[in-house]
Amino acid sequence: MSKCVCLFFVIKISYLYKSTAAEGSCKLKAKFNLRGYKEVEKKTVVIGGMFPVHQRLTDTDSNTTIAPESSDCEGFNFRTFRWAQTMLFALNEINSRNDILPDTELGYVIYDSCFTISKAVEGTLTFLTGQDEAVPNYRCGDGPPLSALVGAGGSDLSIATARILGLYYFPQMSYASSCSVLESRFQYPTFLRTIPSDEHQSVAMAKLVLHFGWTWVGTIAAEDDYGKYGIKRFKEVVEEAGVCISFSETLPKIRNPEAIERIVQTVLDSTAKIIVVFSSDVDLSPLVGELLRNNVTNRTWIASEAWVTSAAISRHPDILPVLGGTIGFAVKRADIPGLKEHLLSVTPYNDTLTEEFWGIVFNCTMNYRQVLSGMRRCTGEEMMEKLSNTFTDVSQLRITYNVYKAVYAVAHALHNLEDCKPHSGPFENNTCADITKFEPWQVQHKLTVFFIFYFVISFITIMCFPFS
Amino acid sequence: MSKCVCLFFVIKISYLYKSTAAEGSCKLKAKFNLRGYKEVEKKTVVIGGMFPVHQRLTDTDSNTTIAPESSDCEGFNFRTFRWAQTMLFALNEINSRNDILPDTELGYVIYDSCFTISKAVEGTLTFLTGQDEAVPNYRCGDGPPLSALVGAGGSDLSIATARILGLYYFPQMSYASSCSVLESRFQYPTFLRTIPSDEHQSVAMAKLVLHFGWTWVGTIAAEDDYGKYGIKRFKEVVEEAGVCISFSETLPKIRNPEAIERIVQTVLDSTAKIIVVFSSDVDLSPLVGELLRNNVTNRTWIASEAWVTSAAISRHPDILPVLGGTIGFAVKRADIPGLKEHLLSVTPYNDTLTEEFWGIVFNCTMNYRQVLSGMRRCTGEEMMEKLSNTFTDVSQLRITYNVYKAVYAVAHALHNLEDCKPHSGPFENNTCADITKFEPWQVQHKLTVFFIFYFVISFITIMCFPFS
Repeated sequence: MSKCVCLFFVIKISYLYKSTAAEGSCKLKAKFNLRGYKEVEKKTVVIGGMFPVHQRLTDTDSNTTIAPESSDCEGFNFRTFRWAQTMLFALNEINSRNDILPDTELGYVIYDSCFTISKAVEGTLTFLTGQDEAVPNYRCGDGPPLSALVGAGGSDLSIATARILGLYYFPQMSYASSCSVLESRFQYPTFLRTIPSDEHQSVAMAKLVLHFGWTWVGTIAAEDDYGKYGIKRFKEVVEEAGVCISFSETLPKIRNPEAIERIVQTVLDSTAKIIVVFSSDVDLSPLVGELLRNNVTNRTWIASEAWVTSAAISRHPDILPVLGGTIGFAVKRADIPGLKEHLLSVTPYNDTLTEEFWGIVFNCTMNYRQVLSGMRRCTGEEMMEKLSNTFTDVSQLRITYNVYKAVYAVAHALHNLEDCKPHSGPFENNTCADITKFEPWQVQHKLTVFFIFYFVISFITIMCFPFS
Repeated sequence: MSKCVCLFFVIKISYLYKSTAAEGSCKLKAKFNLRGYKEVEKKTVVIGGMFPVHQRLTDTDSNTTIAPESSDCEGFNFRTFRWAQTMLFALNEINSRNDILPDTELGYVIYDSCFTISKAVEGTLTFLTGQDEAVPNYRCGDGPPLSALVGAGGSDLSIATARILGLYYFPQMSYASSCSVLESRFQYPTFLRTIPSDEHQSVAMAKLVLHFGWTWVGTIAAEDDYGKYGIKRFKEVVEEAGVCISFSETLPKIRNPEAIERIVQTVLDSTAKIIVVFSSDVDLSPLVGELLRNNVTNRTWIASEAWVTSAAISRHPDILPVLGGTIGFAVKRADIPGLKEHLLSVTPYNDTLTEEFWGIVFNCTMNYRQVLSGMRRCTGEEMMEKLSNTFTDVSQLRITYNVYKAVYAVAHALHNLEDCKPHSGPFENNTCADITKFEPWQVQHKLTVFFIFYFVISFITIMCFPFS
């Protein structure tokens, strides 16, 4: 944390009247309720980030006769919180290095997308404004220029944000959105990623099924683009080879116990013992609970990369008889020297995300009212080093490493943008871009060139579940 | 045209600097290239509209070293141009009536979405600003309040716009987006429509197949949410009843002759003679051309409502041997008294959309340069009455009637909003909304109530192709 201070902020924009020279009065149209990290003061360039730190929105009042409010989020996720902290770690590291952007300080604006498209769109519109308030088609204030967005998490979130960012030729560097449709340069002109496309994974899963000579399989897909496109491509390949599909089920995106029970019944009724699941761990979790309750054993599960290595799935008690022997393809594992120390150094002050995390792991609170009502007070002196949980576990860094690479890719592109000989630059009339005042499409140009010439996206490795 | 003058406008926003009192300088982030109609001067309330008048974007320069520009559109569509004109007709009619909004003049902002998600998102962001410039999270200027958006055309366009409009609790009333996922109040809280959900259509198509005892069918779906979800539900129902799927093909969204040839080859190779197609007419057209070239006869086609009544498909010469006998479900037909006269009264002046239409149907130009290069000059005296084309054909008003109903639904909601007894209103503390200064969620409340109590969405009727 040598050169960088994390400031927490909650944006809760009130209906606000302000005047502009050209337009008379402007009125903010909605209150967005966003949480995250921000540090832009005295920085040269700002990088955006978006991580699904919470798993869902809280229920809102369905009364249509009062002014609605932007939802809050719930379901704190230790794994994705580690991703967000990894972005902060990478930025600190780059800021302290002398070989990348030696004279340029990187700032950041990071939002929690709450695993929800609407929150991701709220974050994108607010981020594009450049400051705390959302004026999406304008860049307001005299702050440092925005360079790129690292995010937004799952494929359906990235598709929604890429559609808006693309209009502004604004680069997006994703670490976890593997859906094959995001390959389309026509639909998503500024989308890049540090995770391979599901085109490879779906075909590999199909070849796995064919390799073992399985000819009768069931499929389960999440109700989003990741699940739909992933399983569609898988089916195309296996059906062409003569494999028959016993059932095709879809996991609901919002809580629906009846649908989950119905899927378990289908699994039980079917004679297919091989079941292919294309889903995130968050969407799959309710089904795993129901499979455990029904003691559904004697099946072989083929897992997509989003859940095959997930602790949220493997930590279910008594999981082995149900999911033991599951196979799938995982994103390659890597080490990030220094990350463990960074994760252990987080403190619960001035930051409600870490405060919430702290309260959960140490079973205490920093909220005065909750202390009065009998909850144990956090002292802030609790020992992170003694913890052993998904957040501090750096033995299986996969998506985490993709986050790290994504931040470095943006930094390298900015470095190349800055490192430009006058009159020999890549832009019109051999001009260079000015690192203190550039256009997003200029970063996009550098990122694309960087990806073509220097970047090797990790191959996916085969994985057995539960992994050691 | 008694109370309303259609003004044409092209927004081509330049990079623009302006200062706001609170934020220092604001800079527009992108140039949007939007075409449409606008009339807001001296109006009380503004209704938005979005229609896919053109079929695709023009190719843009792929050079990444120069500043990119928002694309223009091409492929003028007579049918969807009729939809846009129907909205203008309905607004004129309402403005001249004394029983609906007697003291309130409705204005409009209508954009061409060019059948493309990116253009629809550009239009939505610009529309939300309220004026010609796009400051989406702000409502700028002292213009009349925005009430709702009628649009945006196909389901994938509506999904993209609904995700943004929903954040602002802004009502959207769709006339052609039948995709079942749009039912979700959680994902699309302010989306309503005057077309039934595909849930009914997919099940009806499945029952049709089962009714005739067909057990071996092929499926073709457009590469969008309409096609994907429509065919998915169809498959679920027929597969449960023991029908087998011979092949599942996907129609590309962008020009791809090889993919189309491959689909025709699959159709030729398959022994399945029953083929179910869930697609818009625009996306299906290239396949129909290729089927004709290969003289693919002896198949029975099951059509979704988006193409079963489309003149763009049925006007192909020699279509009968290939698609004769096609059956499907169509949106109910209706008459709109006075519409024919309105359509025949369009003039090519001050409006580049009608100017383009005029040039195409009369094979002339109003562009001075093109006249100099030898093209025939339009006199403006050409006789619309002598024309017989898809635009002026009012014998099969289906989606057109949905547009008409959508505009009336918004007008009725506004009427109910205005018609409110002081101290007996529906909002907090029994207050009423002010028709000159209301919030979008208040219109949404009225629209929802209106839909629940008064609106009966037309049932779909069975249709044989080519219809008489």
